[in-house]
Amino acid sequence: MTGRDHRDLGGPTEKCGVVGVSLDERAAARPLYYALYALQHRGQESAGIVTHDGFQQHSHVEMGLVGDAFGEDDLDQLNGPVGIGHVRYPTAGSVNACCAQPFSVSFKSGSLGLSHNGNLVNADEIRDELAGLGHAFTSDGDTEVIAHDLARNLLEEDLVRAVKRTMSRIHGSYSLTIMHDDTVLGVRDPEGNRPLCIGEVDDGYLLASESAAIDVLDGELVRDVEPGELVILRPDGEGFDAYQLFDRENSAHCFFEHVYFARPDSTIDDQLVYDVRRDLGRALWAESGVDTDVVMPVPDSGRAFASGYADAAGEDGADVEFAEGLMKNRYVGRTFIMPTQDARERAVRLKLNPIKDIVQDRTVTLIDDSIVRGTTSTQLVQLMRDVGAEAVHVRIGAPPIVAPCYMGIDMASREELIAADRTTEEIGEEISADSLEYLSIESVAGALDQSRADLCLGCVTGEYPYDIDGETTDRDVERPTIGSEPAAADD
Amino acid sequence: MTGRDHRDLGGPTEKCGVVGVSLDERAAARPLYYALYALQHRGQESAGIVTHDGFQQHSHVEMGLVGDAFGEDDLDQLNGPVGIGHVRYPTAGSVNACCAQPFSVSFKSGSLGLSHNGNLVNADEIRDELAGLGHAFTSDGDTEVIAHDLARNLLEEDLVRAVKRTMSRIHGSYSLTIMHDDTVLGVRDPEGNRPLCIGEVDDGYLLASESAAIDVLDGELVRDVEPGELVILRPDGEGFDAYQLFDRENSAHCFFEHVYFARPDSTIDDQLVYDVRRDLGRALWAESGVDTDVVMPVPDSGRAFASGYADAAGEDGADVEFAEGLMKNRYVGRTFIMPTQDARERAVRLKLNPIKDIVQDRTVTLIDDSIVRGTTSTQLVQLMRDVGAEAVHVRIGAPPIVAPCYMGIDMASREELIAADRTTEEIGEEISADSLEYLSIESVAGALDQSRADLCLGCVTGEYPYDIDGETTDRDVERPTIGSEPAAADD
Amino acid sequence: MTGRDHRDLGGPTEKCGVVGVSLDERAAARPLYYALYALQHRGQESAGIVTHDGFQQHSHVEMGLVGDAFGEDDLDQLNGPVGIGHVRYPTAGSVNACCAQPFSVSFKSGSLGLSHNGNLVNADEIRDELAGLGHAFTSDGDTEVIAHDLARNLLEEDLVRAVKRTMSRIHGSYSLTIMHDDTVLGVRDPEGNRPLCIGEVDDGYLLASESAAIDVLDGELVRDVEPGELVILRPDGEGFDAYQLFDRENSAHCFFEHVYFARPDSTIDDQLVYDVRRDLGRALWAESGVDTDVVMPVPDSGRAFASGYADAAGEDGADVEFAEGLMKNRYVGRTFIMPTQDARERAVRLKLNPIKDIVQDRTVTLIDDSIVRGTTSTQLVQLMRDVGAEAVHVRIGAPPIVAPCYMGIDMASREELIAADRTTEEIGEEISADSLEYLSIESVAGALDQSRADLCLGCVTGEYPYDIDGETTDRDVERPTIGSEPAAADD
Amino acid sequence: MTGRDHRDLGGPTEKCGVVGVSLDERAAARPLYYALYALQHRGQESAGIVTHDGFQQHSHVEMGLVGDAFGEDDLDQLNGPVGIGHVRYPTAGSVNACCAQPFSVSFKSGSLGLSHNGNLVNADEIRDELAGLGHAFTSDGDTEVIAHDLARNLLEEDLVRAVKRTMSRIHGSYSLTIMHDDTVLGVRDPEGNRPLCIGEVDDGYLLASESAAIDVLDGELVRDVEPGELVILRPDGEGFDAYQLFDRENSAHCFFEHVYFARPDSTIDDQLVYDVRRDLGRALWAESGVDTDVVMPVPDSGRAFASGYADAAGEDGADVEFAEGLMKNRYVGRTFIMPTQDARERAVRLKLNPIKDIVQDRTVTLIDDSIVRGTTSTQLVQLMRDVGAEAVHVRIGAPPIVAPCYMGIDMASREELIAADRTTEEIGEEISADSLEYLSIESVAGALDQSRADLCLGCVTGEYPYDIDGETTDRDVERPTIGSEPAAADD
Repeated sequence: MTGRDHRDLGGPTEKCGVVGVSLDERAAARPLYYALYALQHRGQESAGIVTHDGFQQHSHVEMGLVGDAFGEDDLDQLNGPVGIGHVRYPTAGSVNACCAQPFSVSFKSGSLGLSHNGNLVNADEIRDELAGLGHAFTSDGDTEVIAHDLARNLLEEDLVRAVKRTMSRIHGSYSLTIMHDDTVLGVRDPEGNRPLCIGEVDDGYLLASESAAIDVLDGELVRDVEPGELVILRPDGEGFDAYQLFDRENSAHCFFEHVYFARPDSTIDDQLVYDVRRDLGRALWAESGVDTDVVMPVPDSGRAFASGYADAAGEDGADVEFAEGLMKNRYVGRTFIMPTQDARERAVRLKLNPIKDIVQDRTVTLIDDSIVRGTTSTQLVQLMRDVGAEAVHVRIGAPPIVAPCYMGIDMASREELIAADRTTEEIGEEISADSLEYLSIESVAGALDQSRADLCLGCVTGEYPYDIDGETTDRDVERPTIGSEPAAADD
Repeated sequence: MTGRDHRDLGGPTEKCGVVGVSLDERAAARPLYYALYALQHRGQESAGIVTHDGFQQHSHVEMGLVGDAFGEDDLDQLNGPVGIGHVRYPTAGSVNACCAQPFSVSFKSGSLGLSHNGNLVNADEIRDELAGLGHAFTSDGDTEVIAHDLARNLLEEDLVRAVKRTMSRIHGSYSLTIMHDDTVLGVRDPEGNRPLCIGEVDDGYLLASESAAIDVLDGELVRDVEPGELVILRPDGEGFDAYQLFDRENSAHCFFEHVYFARPDSTIDDQLVYDVRRDLGRALWAESGVDTDVVMPVPDSGRAFASGYADAAGEDGADVEFAEGLMKNRYVGRTFIMPTQDARERAVRLKLNPIKDIVQDRTVTLIDDSIVRGTTSTQLVQLMRDVGAEAVHVRIGAPPIVAPCYMGIDMASREELIAADRTTEEIGEEISADSLEYLSIESVAGALDQSRADLCLGCVTGEYPYDIDGETTDRDVERPTIGSEPAAADD
Repeated sequence: MTGRDHRDLGGPTEKCGVVGVSLDERAAARPLYYALYALQHRGQESAGIVTHDGFQQHSHVEMGLVGDAFGEDDLDQLNGPVGIGHVRYPTAGSVNACCAQPFSVSFKSGSLGLSHNGNLVNADEIRDELAGLGHAFTSDGDTEVIAHDLARNLLEEDLVRAVKRTMSRIHGSYSLTIMHDDTVLGVRDPEGNRPLCIGEVDDGYLLASESAAIDVLDGELVRDVEPGELVILRPDGEGFDAYQLFDRENSAHCFFEHVYFARPDSTIDDQLVYDVRRDLGRALWAESGVDTDVVMPVPDSGRAFASGYADAAGEDGADVEFAEGLMKNRYVGRTFIMPTQDARERAVRLKLNPIKDIVQDRTVTLIDDSIVRGTTSTQLVQLMRDVGAEAVHVRIGAPPIVAPCYMGIDMASREELIAADRTTEEIGEEISADSLEYLSIESVAGALDQSRADLCLGCVTGEYPYDIDGETTDRDVERPTIGSEPAAADD
Repeated sequence: MTGRDHRDLGGPTEKCGVVGVSLDERAAARPLYYALYALQHRGQESAGIVTHDGFQQHSHVEMGLVGDAFGEDDLDQLNGPVGIGHVRYPTAGSVNACCAQPFSVSFKSGSLGLSHNGNLVNADEIRDELAGLGHAFTSDGDTEVIAHDLARNLLEEDLVRAVKRTMSRIHGSYSLTIMHDDTVLGVRDPEGNRPLCIGEVDDGYLLASESAAIDVLDGELVRDVEPGELVILRPDGEGFDAYQLFDRENSAHCFFEHVYFARPDSTIDDQLVYDVRRDLGRALWAESGVDTDVVMPVPDSGRAFASGYADAAGEDGADVEFAEGLMKNRYVGRTFIMPTQDARERAVRLKLNPIKDIVQDRTVTLIDDSIVRGTTSTQLVQLMRDVGAEAVHVRIGAPPIVAPCYMGIDMASREELIAADRTTEEIGEEISADSLEYLSIESVAGALDQSRADLCLGCVTGEYPYDIDGETTDRDVERPTIGSEPAAADD
């Protein structure tokens, strides 16, 4: 239940997972492999691990799923008790092997490996500046820019100061795990846009995008890395040191991590994702509950929402049956041959099959987490009617997506977003639902137990917490200006 | 939600899906492809389609999943409006390409293609008999035996009589789709052990192991093929002819199709699988419900059971929360590298991760459909305790599996079955549960709305509806003796 | 220098190699692998080995080259000291995995494996006859027909008599290695069309299409299998027994084996192929030598011819330089992307590059073994002129190919053969040579030290030693009639 | 006949081919593909092409042979009439995908692509220097160092001056094709160690390691690029401009290119390789001819030598037969499974099979181009004796290899070289030849028509024309000192 494959169904695409580990003596490769495996939902394009044995780096990066990218031999040659890993779905940079991560470079005083989750908004400026100093780049990815900048700073400063200087120059969304020679560190951008957490295992510590990666190693979640914080894992798995390098008044957590991207069993910024989703479902009933014969999740992503919604309905005394009336074919793969054009709209049925007995002659409420282009929703509503539903209501556990994401999530272009220029009522008509309701931003903030000012709501408001060319900046929140970065914590 | 991958988790293995179609003009290849796709849960080892264009057969059979086995070009060359298909997981015969199906042969008066789901108990005798007549076999599979026998009978008789004669000779479990030249037919063994149903689409008719294969073609389920019945699809999609060739007093439906193998959205022998599973869950509460803080399905197969169980508990006024406390990693693949030996028992966590917040300091009831070897159950109970469960109760929606299946399901050998020589109490201790209860056979028969005498209960009673060397025959039910087959319906 | 890749250059295609081995204790798999490797030039489509360990057969057959078809693991599982092998290029039957060999069947009294080189002319009749007895066939290949016929005969007779009966029924070209349970045998058709020889190694004996396969095992060539002879290898590598089952007045050896197919380092029917080719070259000079500045082989197949031609010229006092003026690119592979249509005729240059310094302003004689379609010859003559040749003479070490081969060699259809309806002079004009001469049939027979009546000359005379529908039978030689086979040696 | 696969037989390994092309309108991709195909013998590890369409670079680099690395689609997307290509066998840097070439970088004022053949001796110093300026490197290859240095120089200077400055800093062996934005250029190191030549085709010009790459495009060889020369191809295929940037008194051509690496049909430094090899063979007879029954080349590399040797012998009236007594199996592939250890020495026979009839009871002279480790020679001599040779003499068309190559050819380490610490007589005993003779350095220089001072003879003298740590510099020749480069031609 780690999120349906939205690439197939037209939803937003998941984006990149990072991990870093420092152990006592045990080789880091296998723990990194299992951790990446637990983060596979965050990126399926490529997988990579870079370790260090005290003398040199070892690297293995390949296109494909974790299970396909690594063989026993590959893991065996990745020597050393420290390392970082990455699973990738492309954010910026071209989609090919050269951009798979971790990205490794050697420079004057050593080696650097970087794993990046997020998206910079000023990568081009930094790149131009470095190019002016003679730097040559092999890719057009953000990660190489960060690597070059950090390498240059390390010529003159110690590790903490060099990281701080680089963080003061780059602007945007980033959670990074970095290996400098055999030291593993983690950094979260000052707005804390993407998640990053610290875990403890028997013989060491790790950093990971989500706590589920700690769980599979039988470890304990220590805490989230704070926005603007640098965490350096000590050698031999002997703990970690933390440096609060930047301290902003407001953060800009991506609420969509909770709604959609993250695994339900991960705890992000102190909140269990599964609980948040059930609470969102409960709030959805409270805001716009409708009495129907049956409440039905769109699997797998709508399940927790629907469960909370149905529970709340039951508590209110509504006689609502919760049923799994849409069955998912778990063998949907990349190489599936689509029906010819005229039958394309039936394609959804190959992936989600309605159970006639549950739907026929009944009123139905479909619960999902989001609507992006609207194609899937339209097809699902039609499917319900095809098998005899009397009425079909749709309830969405998040606000309408009205604008693109520039922070690392490839939702769709503004033109493709069904909500970009339609009212909720118009969308409901477009997807032919008897009624459609979204959840309010206030309820989202409430379920997340966060102030609205601490969330990145760009995709549902069109106002962003970062300066983005051609887009409106979120004026309700005071944010520092790029280039005139003064707000570093003292050092 | 079509059944978890029991190969990974130690459960019984799914077995073979068959399909056959006769259309008006449209090429049969794509409909067969989508139908196989919907039956993928019944077999992942190989996939094949054989069509006929009126002049000759076209065949494409390959190892692997449906999506991998066929490309556009492959489908394009499979000409003709009639055809049969197969997805396979090995039952009898060696596991290699030579046994992938449909199995095709040419003989004196034409060609034959066969897709087989089931397992014969007298294949060796028939094979020896045919060998004595000079037949040479290229595989050691049941299907080649049926093909040779049918081909030989077709030298002397018309199609219906030839099929009847072959059916009177072979003994065991079989649902077959057959293509004789360009005629497609379907046969279900006289005991109706494996499912087979008839569907109607806009421009023709089809036969399939499960009705979900009809759904993806936007078709309607017409009815099940009856035990002992032969159904011949007319050319040009113009309907079908049915022949009740054998008429037994009792059938021997596999109850495990409903409990585990079939898709929840399939209707088998007039019953929706999802409803049966929820009813089994309700009966489980009625028989052995226990008050706990939370009821938790083992995903994906335990979900419908747990939902029925929790509903029934709620109706009884029990204050039981239903929660998805075990999260499944949907990227578990074939090439996954297992941890080294000493960490092997933790492997389950890579696939099923417990949510600590839901479990900690609470009493938990885990609901699953079956226990085979007990390894997974032991690991899951331990996982619950690891994350702080106060008590862990286990409830299983089927009776204990005490004996192997000879009808085509590769559960395990008797030595491996945890229930083969243990009482329920002993099993509960073995898996370290605070309590363990199975469902009674009576409740299974009740939920299936079938007489106990009409079910194959071999795996839960050790008494089989077929004569199997070294095993006890089910004496409560009168069954015909192999070899002295008199009970054919008149012809 | 085992023959150029005529598939690329438009020449006849090589056809199938067979091998069989019986050793004392050593596993047969690796010796078979190396032997097939030495026979790779006879077939590149598929490779297979079947062994027997005294209890059961082990088989591994795959598409592709020997080196690609087998891994260490594959060889390790092929247990047992006896086995047979095959490399294949398709003769009859469709080109796909189902027809790869050895072909294995089990029948009443045991198992059979067959490797076949050749082509039957009455396979369809035998197949129909067996089908009438109820046999069902999985392929349309000759080999399955032979296997079924032999299996049937083995029901009633001992091995020698059963083989003899099958040989009296099938008609055409065949060299077979057969494994009946764990007995390996070899058979050569009564006309001895395809080669087969016996070799001895330290710990056993083997049968192979060519003696080069014996060489790579450090063995000694014992002798050729005689036309119509059956050779049974004794168990434990303890020698062999020979049975002269058929004894014809005339054989029908394929002269093209010597001219083109076989390796130069093989000895076939008592003659070293390399020597034969040099003698053919000498005869070519004697018949139609022309004084030129330089004599040049078309590599690799023309090299031995050119060497003999130049030697004979030198002995005659002609001032002729022998030079390798055409350089072959040995990396020509299957996946090479051809130039677009208008540049197609230049494609030969990617494979054979002329050395300008050797050709420019000189008269040149190109020596090759055969001309099939004439495309390559035309391109080569043009290439010579492009780099400045004053005159280009072409000499061919075999007679013109005027008719197709029905004995297992896929030369081309009659329409495609440039010599089918042209005089030598017309062909010379067609390929734009200053002169063109072929070798006479008499010289071929002379170089082979065989009577013309003992050769199959179908492709150069249009008269065949077998009854072929629509073709003329070679009336100069008395041949037995199919179906009324009386000429078996006494048994 | 482009050189045997020495990787299999223990000889020196071929090294890298480069190409660059500027055409009028035609896309450069296919011409580059065919050119690389003609240079495939210089590197089989990876292949790559980078083109430029006036707006941007297009790149496709993959591991494997040219035919496998590129599909039609790959070529189609490589837009633009200019481009460079590379085939690689590793010289320096690790053996993996990251080091495949052309190497591409973008920098301040544009893009650079580089293809490199050769080896720098001061790459580490330049790398360190650039690292000190902040450069970060993604590989440990020479090519990235050259790219960064050139990119840095281009920040301040025009193309010609920037290239000259980089050439004055790097030291060693290099032939480069470079693409700066859409300008293609070629550079040959001041000593002219590796070859590079200019060709003209209908619609443009190209640069290539060997003239055979020009031939396959039906082009004409214009001339060699001179040592120390820069050649810039004009846009639209309108000719080229040449700049003699460095002008040394002596060059340091690699004589081994002529003896072994290059294709026989290539013309290098004004000499046809095939002619040189025949002349070396003639000189070998003159120096150390021995009367034997038969002269036999080790195929394919010894063929031209043996032909010259036999011709010279014939002219001297020696009664020597030239015969191809060793037959090569052309299907030797990468995946071949070697015999187990104790049979390893027989492995050569799988690749080279002796013809007994030619060898038995006769005296034999084996002709080869070089002996590296001596393993193959030992096996071949033994093979000759195994099939009955009375005496086996070995003649080598080059001097003994006594020291490693630092200029880009991976011959072997000094410890592995059989001639490093043995006299010719001792080597003859080691390989068990009745006699062994090498060719003198004087004869090599004579056949190449070059002064000894203009050749790199490091591997046969142990004295190198470059400053190499721990090795002796060739004191007979005045060479400039690294770092104090004054000898640039005026600019």
